[in-house]
Amino acid sequence: VSYVAVIFTSQLASTDGYDLAADRMEELAAAQPGYRGIESARDASGFGITVSYWDSGEAAAAWKQVAEHRAAQARGRAEWYAGYTVRIATVTREYGSAAPPG
Amino acid sequence: VSYVAVIFTSQLASTDGYDLAADRMEELAAAQPGYRGIESARDASGFGITVSYWDSGEAAAAWKQVAEHRAAQARGRAEWYAGYTVRIATVTREYGSAAPPG
Repeated sequence: VSYVAVIFTSQLASTDGYDLAADRMEELAAAQPGYRGIESARDASGFGITVSYWDSGEAAAAWKQVAEHRAAQARGRAEWYAGYTVRIATVTREYGSAAPPG
Repeated sequence: VSYVAVIFTSQLASTDGYDLAADRMEELAAAQPGYRGIESARDASGFGITVSYWDSGEAAAAWKQVAEHRAAQARGRAEWYAGYTVRIATVTREYGSAAPPG
C-alpha cells in the first residue's frame, strides 16, 4: 500500500459552531479529488484526533487550499483550538480486522 | 522530519478492564527504545484513535512484539474490539501550534 494520511490532533478551547463546521468539512473533504476516507474521535476533555486519507500528497495539499476549508482553518486557529498539530505521513503498511479506506 | 506513526483505530465492543490495560500499555510503550510519544482519543460511541510515534519502523515493530503488549493485543482481538485497523506511516512533514513529540 502507499497513500497519504493527514493526522490532525487538536485541543478544543471553544465548541461554539464547531460540530456544524466539522461535519461540513467532512462532507467537503469527501468531494475532493483523491479523497479516500476520514476518521475522527474526540474525548470528553476536548482532545481530538482526525485522520484523513488521500491518494497522494498533492491531493492532501490541494484539500488544504480549498477556500471554504481555509476559512474553517482560520476560524479554528482564532477561536476553536487551544492547540493543534498537523502531520503529513505516508502509509506503507496496514492490517487489522476492519476494512481499510479507498 | 522523518519518524514513524502507528495509527491504531478501533471500535470497542467491551470496556471490561480496558482502561486499566490501555493506561498500562501507554506506560509500557513509553519505556521502549525509540519511543517518541503517544496520543489517544475515544468518543462516547467507543470509537477511538491512538497514534504512537517512533524513531524508526524497527522501533515500532519491536514494540509490537513486547510480550505484555502481545498479550494485550490478543485480549483486544478476543474481547475488547469489535473491529480495528493498524496503519504504519512515515511522517514527512508537521506543523501547528502545539509542540511535536520527541
